[in-house]
Formats: sequence, C-alpha cells, structure tokens
Amino acid sequence: MRIVVTGGAGFLGSRVIRALLAARGRKEGLPAFESILSVDLAPCPVEDPRVSSLVGDVAEPGFAARVVEAGTLGVYHLAAVLSGQSEAEFDVGMRVNLDGTRALLEAARATGEAPRFVFASSVAVFGGEMPEVVPETLAPMPASSYGAAKAMGELLVNDYSRRGFVDGRVCRLPTIVVRPGKPNSAASSFASGIIREPLAGVASNLPVPRETRLWLSSPDAVVGNLVHAMAVEGARIGPWRTLNLPGVCVTAGAMLESLARVGGAAARALVREEPEERVARIVCSWPGDFDVARPLALGFTRDGDFDGVVRQYRDEFVR
Amino acid sequence: MRIVVTGGAGFLGSRVIRALLAARGRKEGLPAFESILSVDLAPCPVEDPRVSSLVGDVAEPGFAARVVEAGTLGVYHLAAVLSGQSEAEFDVGMRVNLDGTRALLEAARATGEAPRFVFASSVAVFGGEMPEVVPETLAPMPASSYGAAKAMGELLVNDYSRRGFVDGRVCRLPTIVVRPGKPNSAASSFASGIIREPLAGVASNLPVPRETRLWLSSPDAVVGNLVHAMAVEGARIGPWRTLNLPGVCVTAGAMLESLARVGGAAARALVREEPEERVARIVCSWPGDFDVARPLALGFTRDGDFDGVVRQYRDEFVR
Repeated sequence: MRIVVTGGAGFLGSRVIRALLAARGRKEGLPAFESILSVDLAPCPVEDPRVSSLVGDVAEPGFAARVVEAGTLGVYHLAAVLSGQSEAEFDVGMRVNLDGTRALLEAARATGEAPRFVFASSVAVFGGEMPEVVPETLAPMPASSYGAAKAMGELLVNDYSRRGFVDGRVCRLPTIVVRPGKPNSAASSFASGIIREPLAGVASNLPVPRETRLWLSSPDAVVGNLVHAMAVEGARIGPWRTLNLPGVCVTAGAMLESLARVGGAAARALVREEPEERVARIVCSWPGDFDVARPLALGFTRDGDFDGVVRQYRDEFVR
Repeated sequence: MRIVVTGGAGFLGSRVIRALLAARGRKEGLPAFESILSVDLAPCPVEDPRVSSLVGDVAEPGFAARVVEAGTLGVYHLAAVLSGQSEAEFDVGMRVNLDGTRALLEAARATGEAPRFVFASSVAVFGGEMPEVVPETLAPMPASSYGAAKAMGELLVNDYSRRGFVDGRVCRLPTIVVRPGKPNSAASSFASGIIREPLAGVASNLPVPRETRLWLSSPDAVVGNLVHAMAVEGARIGPWRTLNLPGVCVTAGAMLESLARVGGAAARALVREEPEERVARIVCSWPGDFDVARPLALGFTRDGDFDGVVRQYRDEFVR
C-alpha cells in the first residue's frame, strides 16, 4: 500500500515525500500508506526505510507499468521537462510531458483500483489576452509547448477521473519562489534567482519588466497544498478536477523591494535588469492573479506576503 | 500540389471535396490545388479525375507519412470516431481521435512546408455549468471522451501552428442537421433522425427533453464554412486558431415545430418522446448558444432559421 512520487528526487518531489512521511497518520483524509516509491532519473535523497527509489524515465515504453502497480493508493506525477527546455526541444517535451503522463494514467487504470492521482500542472497553460483576475472557467490558450502539454495532461486526468479509471486532482502550481540550489531550465527560473543569488552575494538578472506580475508560492505552501490535494475527498472537488492553487500576486519590482527590505541594499544592488526576449515572451504570457475562492474553501492555503517568503528562504538556507 | 481530406469518403468529407472542386479558382484565398486526396476506410464516392483515394487508418503507424507528403497545400482532418462510440470504446476513440490527429500533424510538420491544417472539432469539448451564451474564452471541460480527445487535438493544432509546423485552423462544428442516410454512432444522431425519418414516413424518437437547446448547422452551411476555413488568411485569425463556427440555437421542441410546419402534422406525429439517459447525459452537456461575432467578422456564415434547414433537406432528399 504505497504512494508513488514521480520526480521524487527533485526539489519539489523530495519535499513532498518528507511532508508525506510527517503527515502520515496526522493529516485527515491522507491515505494510510506503508511506503513511498520515488521515481526519477536519480535516486531520492530522502533517507527513510519507508522510501525506495526506482530510477528511470516515465515515458519509456513499459516503465510506467512497473511504477504504478496494484496496491498503489496514490500517485503524484511531478516529473516534467520544464518550460524552457520544452520550448527548445519540442519532441522531448511532448514525449515526457504528454506521453509520460498518459503512460502513468494507463498504468493506474490497469490496476483497476482507481488510485488518487495528483497531477502537477502550471499557470503556463494560460496565454493570450487575459482578464486582470483569472476565473476558474478561463480557457487555456498556452503560449508555450510546456503549457500545451500540461493542458493536454489536465484533460486526460479529468477524463480518466470522469470514467473512474483514477481519482484525479489537477493542481496548477504557481511559480515556486525561492527555490534553493542552481538555476533550472524553467523560463521562470529567474524569479528564484533574483532573491537567491543576491542573498548569497552573487549577481543576478531580472529579464522581464518590473511591472510584470507573477503568481508566486513558497515551497512550503506548495508542498502543503500538494499533501492536501492527496488528502481531500474527490467528491468535494466535484466532477471537474482542475484547481488553480492559491498563490500571491507580486510584481517583479515588488519582489526586488522585498529583497531590499529583507536582504539589505547591498543585496538589492546585485540585481541588474537586462531584458531577455526568450524568457519575457513565455513568462509575460502567464496570468498574474487568480480567483481562488473554491480552492481556499477546499482547504488549500497560500503565503501571507512576499517579505515572509524571502525570510522563509533566508532563515532556512542562508547562514 | 494537393489538398488532403481525411474522412473524405464520409458524408461531410465527400461534400467538402465537391465544394472544393467547385470553389477552385473562384474562392479568394483558396490554395490553387491540382488534386485532392481522400483518406478514409473506404474509397471516396466523388468521381472526378482530380480526386484519388487512399484507404487506411490515420492512426496506423507509418500511414500518416503517406497521407501528408511534400507538396501538400492543405489538410482537412475530418476523420474521427464519433461521440457515442468514443464513450463506449475508450481506447479506440483515443487512438483515432488523439493519436491519429497527432500523427497527421507530425507528417505535416515533416514536410517543412507548414501546410494549412483545418481540424474539425466540436461543441462537445464543453461541459459542466455554462453561461447562456458561450464566449470564446470559455474553458473546455468535456463530459465525454470524444470531447476530451477533440480538446487535446485543438491544443496540438494550436501549438503546432504557434511553432510554425502547420498553419492551423480549428473549427468547432455545430451539430449537423439534417444528415441524410442512416443513424450514426454520434450521441447527437437523433437530431437528424427526428427530421429525416418522419419525412420518409418512418417513426423516430426524441431522447432528450423538448427544452434542450441545440447548436445546429445545415450541411451546406458547415461545408461552406470548412471551405472558407481553408481560404482565410491565418494572420487574420490571429495567434489562437480555435473558432466556434456559427450555428443557430434551436430547442428540440422548436425542431419538432419546424418539422410540423414543413412536413405536416402526420410527419410530426411519427416522433415519440422516450428519454434515453445515455444520449441525454452527453448531449445535455453541450452548450446551446455561442458568441460568434469574431467568426462572422472573419467571413464565416450560418443558416437563416431552422425551417429553412428542414426545407433544404426536403427539397434535396425527399421525393
């Protein structure tokens, strides 16, 4: 009786695994799993006897059936090729983000047990002209291949849920800030970089205009919401399983002000502002604010303000 | 220099082929094709030296590359497993409606010539609670596997267009009424049946409530719009290529009144009203009315009223 976490070796996946272990037996509604299987291109860094690792590529033919076997209570599908790489390498992105998702859903269906299936989607499904505040009924018009594949994955999870093949929950994640470590291939990677690098005394670049609005969540808030997504009753979500996870709407300029307040003027001075067309084109196609009344009513949460997000990172990662 | 029509042996495809032959050299913007290739499970019934047939299944590995070769000016992708069968046979529907569409798009991409690509989608992409009149920005929340696969196909055509692999046009077709011939596996098949059968002196059934609103188009109007979709400049459509084709909003009850007016009381008396849960669940999930200001401004058209649609059928098919 286990929970599967694809992308379990990654930043988000390993944190979800730690949070699941801590929430086991404490969080109402969370399936009473005995073990967690991490599935990723590398072994999971979490050292716990209940956690094991399967190394491989979810899109590889036949692999998904080894990932989701009978006795799987729930699946987190977090593994993905990120937005920057998906735009640069179309076929790689489609293979992992679309075919990989479908293979996992098929494996879950084959168990005949309709496991809970939490799919990490993204605000990148949106594009084009958008209202100031995005309602739940706004059509995805992705302006990136990453967003297109995620939007297709959302439709699959919903149809597999409607048919009773899985008990799905689609979580459109805000941009996660501040991620520790190195920049990644996401177009939004700068959003962590402009806080993380200066706090470490390193220069960084803001590639989008200061007035660009971003929909942000701290790692702690996203991880808490992903655990909640596995615990909440499917019937409470209703027939349509896609949720815009709560976040905070912050402009790039306001992020730099938070950096100055929490990290000081010297840190702020380390951020230059050189526009990068490739990044701006993708990131500026994403919405900055959402109506999240329904997810909040379902018990999902968000950060207080962005200063607190920067402090959370500083207190945990900066000595 | 040819145009490819998948589903070219079918009711709609064969009419599109005839209309293309008639419009060649007359309709502004229509690519100056030399030949038309029909691709279907049967040969195309249109007898014209410019029309040839390729018999096969677009989802069969390797087949799509034979369908869309260099020198293809445009593709109509009309072939599909219909809504009733897609719901009954999930894997068949996904294979043809999703994988088949993707294979054709890949074949078009492989030519390096970005051919025009007209994809027939459907109002079945919508579901759940809907406003009285559906705006262009309403999120597809399909309540059928047919609608889910079509919604995924729409996303593919848009992303392939955005990347310059094809020059796509997604046409969400209204329910086509009156189709001649026999009932088909679409859940909306009754909408033709309740007109066609009584006009031939045969009994028919209305399986949905009289107040059910349907979004309808005559075959002539849909065929004209599909020809127009190939002719219109992509740049005029804009970056998002999905269009709700114009139709007329008619209740099932009003359809029966048209039948009485055009076909007489004896024809009307041949329609019984026995609810069919399987049909009603799918058809009642579709919207009944749309904001079509943009497609009308782009030159797409619709029928005048439903009496005229019934008369069009009677004059052509009833002796």
